[in-house]
Amino acid sequence: MKKIKFAIAGLGRIGKIHLENLQLMDEVEVVAATDTHADGRQYAEKKGIDRVFSSYEQMIKDSTIDAVVICSPTDTHADYVEIAAYAGVAVFCEKPLDLNLGRVLEVLKLVESKGIKLMLGFNRRFDQEFLKVKKLVAQGAIGNHHLVKITSRDPQAPPISYVVQSGGLFLDMTIHDFDMARFLVDKEVVEVYAKGAALINPELSRVGDIDSAVITLTYEDGTMAIIDNSREAAYGYDQRVEVFGSKGMVKADNNLNDTHQLYNSEGSHSALPLHFFLERYADAYKTEIRDFVYTLINNTDLPVDGNDGLQSLMIGLAAIKSIKENKPVKVSEINHNQEISLIIDESSI
Amino acid sequence: MKKIKFAIAGLGRIGKIHLENLQLMDEVEVVAATDTHADGRQYAEKKGIDRVFSSYEQMIKDSTIDAVVICSPTDTHADYVEIAAYAGVAVFCEKPLDLNLGRVLEVLKLVESKGIKLMLGFNRRFDQEFLKVKKLVAQGAIGNHHLVKITSRDPQAPPISYVVQSGGLFLDMTIHDFDMARFLVDKEVVEVYAKGAALINPELSRVGDIDSAVITLTYEDGTMAIIDNSREAAYGYDQRVEVFGSKGMVKADNNLNDTHQLYNSEGSHSALPLHFFLERYADAYKTEIRDFVYTLINNTDLPVDGNDGLQSLMIGLAAIKSIKENKPVKVSEINHNQEISLIIDESSI
Amino acid sequence: MKKIKFAIAGLGRIGKIHLENLQLMDEVEVVAATDTHADGRQYAEKKGIDRVFSSYEQMIKDSTIDAVVICSPTDTHADYVEIAAYAGVAVFCEKPLDLNLGRVLEVLKLVESKGIKLMLGFNRRFDQEFLKVKKLVAQGAIGNHHLVKITSRDPQAPPISYVVQSGGLFLDMTIHDFDMARFLVDKEVVEVYAKGAALINPELSRVGDIDSAVITLTYEDGTMAIIDNSREAAYGYDQRVEVFGSKGMVKADNNLNDTHQLYNSEGSHSALPLHFFLERYADAYKTEIRDFVYTLINNTDLPVDGNDGLQSLMIGLAAIKSIKENKPVKVSEINHNQEISLIIDESSI
Amino acid sequence: MKKIKFAIAGLGRIGKIHLENLQLMDEVEVVAATDTHADGRQYAEKKGIDRVFSSYEQMIKDSTIDAVVICSPTDTHADYVEIAAYAGVAVFCEKPLDLNLGRVLEVLKLVESKGIKLMLGFNRRFDQEFLKVKKLVAQGAIGNHHLVKITSRDPQAPPISYVVQSGGLFLDMTIHDFDMARFLVDKEVVEVYAKGAALINPELSRVGDIDSAVITLTYEDGTMAIIDNSREAAYGYDQRVEVFGSKGMVKADNNLNDTHQLYNSEGSHSALPLHFFLERYADAYKTEIRDFVYTLINNTDLPVDGNDGLQSLMIGLAAIKSIKENKPVKVSEINHNQEISLIIDESSI
Repeated sequence: MKKIKFAIAGLGRIGKIHLENLQLMDEVEVVAATDTHADGRQYAEKKGIDRVFSSYEQMIKDSTIDAVVICSPTDTHADYVEIAAYAGVAVFCEKPLDLNLGRVLEVLKLVESKGIKLMLGFNRRFDQEFLKVKKLVAQGAIGNHHLVKITSRDPQAPPISYVVQSGGLFLDMTIHDFDMARFLVDKEVVEVYAKGAALINPELSRVGDIDSAVITLTYEDGTMAIIDNSREAAYGYDQRVEVFGSKGMVKADNNLNDTHQLYNSEGSHSALPLHFFLERYADAYKTEIRDFVYTLINNTDLPVDGNDGLQSLMIGLAAIKSIKENKPVKVSEINHNQEISLIIDESSI
Repeated sequence: MKKIKFAIAGLGRIGKIHLENLQLMDEVEVVAATDTHADGRQYAEKKGIDRVFSSYEQMIKDSTIDAVVICSPTDTHADYVEIAAYAGVAVFCEKPLDLNLGRVLEVLKLVESKGIKLMLGFNRRFDQEFLKVKKLVAQGAIGNHHLVKITSRDPQAPPISYVVQSGGLFLDMTIHDFDMARFLVDKEVVEVYAKGAALINPELSRVGDIDSAVITLTYEDGTMAIIDNSREAAYGYDQRVEVFGSKGMVKADNNLNDTHQLYNSEGSHSALPLHFFLERYADAYKTEIRDFVYTLINNTDLPVDGNDGLQSLMIGLAAIKSIKENKPVKVSEINHNQEISLIIDESSI
Repeated sequence: MKKIKFAIAGLGRIGKIHLENLQLMDEVEVVAATDTHADGRQYAEKKGIDRVFSSYEQMIKDSTIDAVVICSPTDTHADYVEIAAYAGVAVFCEKPLDLNLGRVLEVLKLVESKGIKLMLGFNRRFDQEFLKVKKLVAQGAIGNHHLVKITSRDPQAPPISYVVQSGGLFLDMTIHDFDMARFLVDKEVVEVYAKGAALINPELSRVGDIDSAVITLTYEDGTMAIIDNSREAAYGYDQRVEVFGSKGMVKADNNLNDTHQLYNSEGSHSALPLHFFLERYADAYKTEIRDFVYTLINNTDLPVDGNDGLQSLMIGLAAIKSIKENKPVKVSEINHNQEISLIIDESSI
Repeated sequence: MKKIKFAIAGLGRIGKIHLENLQLMDEVEVVAATDTHADGRQYAEKKGIDRVFSSYEQMIKDSTIDAVVICSPTDTHADYVEIAAYAGVAVFCEKPLDLNLGRVLEVLKLVESKGIKLMLGFNRRFDQEFLKVKKLVAQGAIGNHHLVKITSRDPQAPPISYVVQSGGLFLDMTIHDFDMARFLVDKEVVEVYAKGAALINPELSRVGDIDSAVITLTYEDGTMAIIDNSREAAYGYDQRVEVFGSKGMVKADNNLNDTHQLYNSEGSHSALPLHFFLERYADAYKTEIRDFVYTLINNTDLPVDGNDGLQSLMIGLAAIKSIKENKPVKVSEINHNQEISLIIDESSI
C-alpha cells in the first residue's frame, strides 16, 4: 500500500497531538514539518521527521506531500490554506480559518476552484458522547427535535492578553458550540440572541469581552437551541448536551476521571470531570485525524468542511451583533462588512 | 391548645389535597367548606366537615374561621381574597391571584390595608429538591451565582380549550418557573427575552399560544437564567434546576418512580420520573400548607406572599410582550395597561 | 360499607406507625388498643380510640373486633397470637413469632386448626424498590436467576443489652434478609454458610454476638445468594439488592434524602441514603397494613404468612449453627432441639 | 539516554498489546521477538523488530537484551522464566507462572537466587478505578476495613476445550479476583469458602468445572471478602469492587461505552459496560508495562512480584479444595501435593 505523505505546520500543543496520532497510523508517513520556533523544529526531528523547515512556503515547495495539517497561529491559517490550494495539497486546518468573514469567503472560493479537500478541526464532532447523541437523534429515537441544549464551561479563564486577539468569547469558545448546535440536528441556524456579562473577571469589560453567556438559537425549522458558557467552572471542564423531541430526550454527560463513589457521614462523593479539552477530547483528536486520512484514501466526503467553518463564524458574528444591540439578529443579516470588534459596552449588561 | 379554624373554597383536585393535608394536622380544625358543585360538597361532608356551603360569601359570613384556603377557579380568586380581607380572615390562595395586573394591584392594596396574611400557592418552593439547592446557594456553596437553569416539561399538553382561558403557556405554566428563578437566588428579575413555537401541536398557533419555549432572564445583579419549557415530554414530568457560580454548581434531578436498574444485552434501563405534579409535589403540598399553618400560629413572615405572585405575573407579561415583539423586554416596562392577549403571530417564529 | 374493626396491641414506635396508617383507611375502624405502659394508653386515647386496655386478654375478651395488630415485645407474640386464634380474630403480628422453633411450630399448628389469618410483618416485601426487582425477575426480564445479592447495613449498632435478648444479629437483623432472599426469587433455601466477626465492637464477643457478617445461601435449584451485613454504616442505612441471571441483571439502589449534586473543586457530592428503616420503609409500612386489610376484605391469600416466619427462623438457626461450627449447614438439619445460644467463640473468627 | 532493550515471547492477542505499548515509550527499544507460529513472527517483522526467532532459547542466547516479556502459552511460562533467570534478564510474565504449586516454588527460588526482577501480569492492579479505591482505603477514607466485595463476570463463556486446560474457573478467572482481594486492602487471605455450580452450561459438570461461583475469603485480621463470578453476563463485562469500613464505603463501577441517557415513554436507557478486558483494561495494560519499565530504569520495587502470583495460586487451590469438600479451607492447608483436578462432583452442588 502506498502511504499518504503528510506535512505538518506548527508544533505547539495541538500540532504535537496531531503528529503523534498520525504516526500511529500505518497508512500515513509524516515526511515534513515546519515551525517558526526552534523547539518546534527540534520536536519534529526527535519524532523522526526527515525534512524540517522554518518556512511554510519552502516546505510546500520543496516537499512531495499529499496533505498538510495546519496548526500554526490563527492569523496564518488563510494564507497557508491558499498556498496549499495552489500546490494542490489537501488541508486539515485548525479552526478558525480567519476571523474576517470576507477573507474566509475568499479562501473558500479558491479552495473550491482548485478542487482541494479542506477539513476544519471541529474536534468535538468526533467525541463519542456527542456522536452517540447525534446518531440517536438521526435514527428518530426522540422523534422530531424541538430543543437542543449545550453547556460548555472551561476550567479556567484565559489571560486578557489572549482574549484581545482571539475575537473574544463567541469566536474562540462558543464557536465550538455553534458548530455542535448545527451538527447535532443537522439543521442551519437562522437567528441568534445572545446575552452575557463579565461576571468572573469584571476587568474583561475594559477590553469589551464577557466571560459568561447565554445564547438562544433558532433553526430554519423552528427548533430552538440554548447554549450556556462560562470561562471558569471551579469543578473543571463541563461539556454536556441534551436534545429534546416529540418522542423523548437524549443527553450526554461529562466523562469523569473515574467511577469511584465514596460514602461517608457527609454524603457520597464522586470524581470531577476530565480536566480540560486535551483530556476530554484525546480520543476525538485521534478519530478526527483518522477520518481525514480515510477521506483522502477513499476519496469520500469530508466530515467537516470549509462551509462548516463559515457557518459557525457567521453565527458568532451574529451573536456579537446581538449582544451589542441587545436584540435578536438573523444570521442572514451578517455580511462582509461586519467588523469583529470588542463586543460589549456598559449598557448591554 | 386552641386549634386554628379553617374553611376551604373549592374541592377539585387541589382542594382535596389541601383538605387531606390540613386534616392530618393536630393544630387545625377544618370547620367549613364551599363548592358550587354538589359533588364537591358531598366530598366535604364525607370528610366530616360540619358546615358545607354552596356560596363562598355566605360561608365567610356565617362561619367563625381564622383562615380560608382558596382553590376555586382562577376568575374567583381576586373577589374571594377581597371578601376574606374585609372579614379579617387569613388567606391561602392558589396562584394566580388574577391574570389582570391592575386587578392584582387592587387586591394587594386591600390586603395590605386590612392587614391580613395572604399566601400564594407556589408549591414548588416547598419541594425538598429545590429547597436543598436554594439552601446550598444561600450558604455560599457555589460562591457568587452566575447562572440559573430551569427545565420544566409537562407529560401531556392540556386541551386547547384550557389554554384559551389560562393566559397561555407563560401564565399557566412558566409562571411557576419565573417564581422558581426568583426563589433560588433570592434576586429580582429585570429583563426577559422569550422565544417559542407551537412545535407539538401547530393548531395552537390559531389561538395564539405556543407549546415550546426558551426564556432568558436577567437579574438585577447581572446573573442570568434560562428556562426551557415543553407542554409534552414523552418520558413524563421533567423538573430540574441547576445553579452555577464562582465556586461550583449545584443541581437537582427528577425524582424517579424507583431506583431499579435493569441491565440486559440492550443496555441498562431505569425508571421514569414521577408522572406529574400530584406525584412529584405530594410532599411539597403537605409542607406548603403546614408552613402556612405555622405562620398563623407563630405570627411569622409568610414564605410566599402577594408580592411574589405580582412579580411572577409581571415577568410573565414581559415574556408575552417579548415573544410578540421578538425583543428583550424590561420588567419595568410592564404596566397596568398591558393586555394579556394571544401571544404569537406567524412572524415571531 | 361495613368497616373492619381493629384492635392494636403495643403502642411503641412501630405500633404508632400501624395505628396512623390504619386510621388513614376509610375501610377500617380502630376500636380498641392495649399497652402495659400508661403513655402508650394515653397515645391511643389521644388518637381517638374508644376502648383502651392495660391487659391484652381483657381487650380480646371485651371487644368486638375482626383483627388485631400485635406490636408488643417479642416474648408476648406467641401467647397473643394464640389468644387471638382461640377468639377467631385475624392477626397481623410483628416478626418474629418466637425465637424458639418448637414454640413457633405449636403456634402455627393452632393458627391452622382455628383457621384464622396470620400475617407476619416482613415490611421490606412491600418496599417499591424490592417489589420492582421481584416483578422483573418473575416476568423473566433476567432469564433464569443464578445469583441474589443483598446488602443490609444499619446506621448504628444497638446497645449490647438489646443484642442479648434479640437472638443476635442473625435473628434480629439478617432474618429480614433471609426473608428477602426467599421473596425475590420465590424459592426455598436449602443450605447456609455464615461467616462473621465483631469488627465494630469487639465487646460483642463477650456475649457471643457479631456485628459484621457474610452469608452464602444455596436454593433448592442451585441458585446462590450472598448477604452482607453490618451493624453500623457511617453513611446510614444501606439496603440494596441485585439479582443476576442468564439474560441480565436487575438491582435496586438506596433511596436518597434528595437528588442534589453539588460540584466544586473537590469533586461532586450527593445526599446520604434515607436515615433508617422508619424513613426508608415509611411507604412500605403503609402498603403492608393496607394489603392486610384488603386480604381480610376480599378473603384472599396473605402476602406473608406464618410459614414465611418459620422458614426465615430456620435459616437463621442454620446460620447460627454454621458460624459456630464453621461449616455449611443444611436447613433441614435444624430441628426442635436447636438451642438459640450465643453464636461465636474465639476460634470461629 | 540509553534505551532498555526488550525481547518479547509470544505475539498473540496480549503479546501484540504489550509490543505496541512498549513501542510508544521513548525509553524502550524492542530488539527481538519469538513466536512458534509464522504469523506471529510476521507481525513482529511488520512492527519493525530486527531479530525475530522461532526458538525462545535461541533468542535469549543470541540477543543482547535487558528484559523479556513472556506472553507465550501458560505451559511455557515456568521454563521461559528459568531460562531468562539463568541469563540474568528481567522478566515480565503473564499470569499464571504455572498451575503446579511445586513448580511455582522452584521457579521463584531460582529467580531469587539469580537476583532477577520478575513481574507478574496482574493487569487489573493498574486500572485507574481500582487504584483509586485502593488509594482511598490506604489513606483511611473508610477507616478500618471490614468487608471487600468483588463482582467479576465475563461477557461470554469460553469453550469447554479451553476450560479443561486452564485449571478451571478458579485458576483462570477468579485468580484475578483473589489478587484484587489482596491488593485492595494489602492483607493476606487465610481462609477460603467456595460455592459454585454449572448454571449457564450444565455440560461443564462433565469436565468437573463450574461457571457460577461465590467465594468468601477471610483475611489475617478478620476482614472478610466476597467474590461473585459468572462466565457469562448478558450485558457484558462486569467488574465492580466495593470496600466497606468503620468510616464509610468506597466503590468503583463499570466503565460504560458512553455516558448517554435516552429517555422515552419506556424509561431511561444507558450504555453497556465496555465489552471485555481488552476494552476495559486498555489503559491498564499501558500503565502496567510502563511501570515495569520504570522499575527497571529506577531499580525500584516491583508493583507485582512472584509472591503475588504464588499467593493467588494458593488461594485458588484452597478454593478448589473447598468446593470439592464443601467446607472452608485454610490457605495454609495447601501444600505441594495438592493436585489441580477437576473441581466439582454432583454432590457438591
